[in-house]
Amino acid sequence: MPIKRNKAQTHQRIVEAAYRLFYRQGFARVGVDVIAARASVTKRTLYSHFRSKDDLLSAVLVHYSELQLARLQVIGDRMPQEHDAMLDSFFGQLAEWAGKPRWSGSGFTRLVVELADLPGHPARAIARRAKIATEDWLAQCLKKARVSSPGERAREIMLLMEGAMALMLIHGDRAYADAAAAAAKRLINQRR
Amino acid sequence: MPIKRNKAQTHQRIVEAAYRLFYRQGFARVGVDVIAARASVTKRTLYSHFRSKDDLLSAVLVHYSELQLARLQVIGDRMPQEHDAMLDSFFGQLAEWAGKPRWSGSGFTRLVVELADLPGHPARAIARRAKIATEDWLAQCLKKARVSSPGERAREIMLLMEGAMALMLIHGDRAYADAAAAAAKRLINQRR
Repeated sequence: MPIKRNKAQTHQRIVEAAYRLFYRQGFARVGVDVIAARASVTKRTLYSHFRSKDDLLSAVLVHYSELQLARLQVIGDRMPQEHDAMLDSFFGQLAEWAGKPRWSGSGFTRLVVELADLPGHPARAIARRAKIATEDWLAQCLKKARVSSPGERAREIMLLMEGAMALMLIHGDRAYADAAAAAAKRLINQRR
Repeated sequence: MPIKRNKAQTHQRIVEAAYRLFYRQGFARVGVDVIAARASVTKRTLYSHFRSKDDLLSAVLVHYSELQLARLQVIGDRMPQEHDAMLDSFFGQLAEWAGKPRWSGSGFTRLVVELADLPGHPARAIARRAKIATEDWLAQCLKKARVSSPGERAREIMLLMEGAMALMLIHGDRAYADAAAAAAKRLINQRR
């Protein structure tokens, strides 16, 4: 079925072009014309795949959710089992990611910030689910490392991670990831 | 000098209209036409006060910096001297702010996220300075409450606060502010 496969490839090419442009420049500033040009398709072809820019955004976020799951898998594979070393590795990888040339923070957070006045937008629900998946993943990692109250600690690490991303984006300074790692370790090692 | 005063009032009216629109809908999605209409001036008048939309943004951020200083003053006035009660009050007021109908998180963080691909934009420097001012203010509050290493603890509270704002915007759930307050108190009360 060469025609069908071709259609799927075009679909994927549009999603990837949109993903890169939205992540880099935000949703509002990127027009459908630019996405079509970047994907080497006509606007008409783009609209035969996606009814609207909002539709395309949903497809992009599903794609981004898959990329995030794959990234968490890689991060998890690299993380040592012992909890302090695990947290150093986790925040170290966050700082490394933040140091990349076109880093723009978390794509989901960015989208939610951009659509702050549209709480009912379907993209917001996808972003919410992705953040819950990350928090659950953290809780699982901590549980495996025999940390007590892994759910509560996972939430604290989420807070420190989101804070570190915002402040690294603002200041361009990885010291915020180091401070987050130090705080996370102290919260986990504390005796009650 | 009635004419001059009138000019200053028009200037301020444009800044306030732009401030509300940018905060609510973001910088990219708001056109100069809409700002002029909201401020009840012509586009020509708007451009006689501000050379460009970027120029207007800078004026808005200076205005927002002043509002933030005033807000920190109010928060500080309401805060008890004892450090645990201080942190409960601080994060409680954050959650209260986040509960307001049109809350869109920190205006500075929002702007930096929106201009993530433009690190050299003059507005980014204003946002950076505002965040440093907040971190310094927190360190001063902690110092007054006789907390040791107030600078390090202020940075941790910044991380928790930025994280709580991002996650409250994403989930619409003040539980993140409560978790941030609990973590901040444990970090401050910890014996080394």
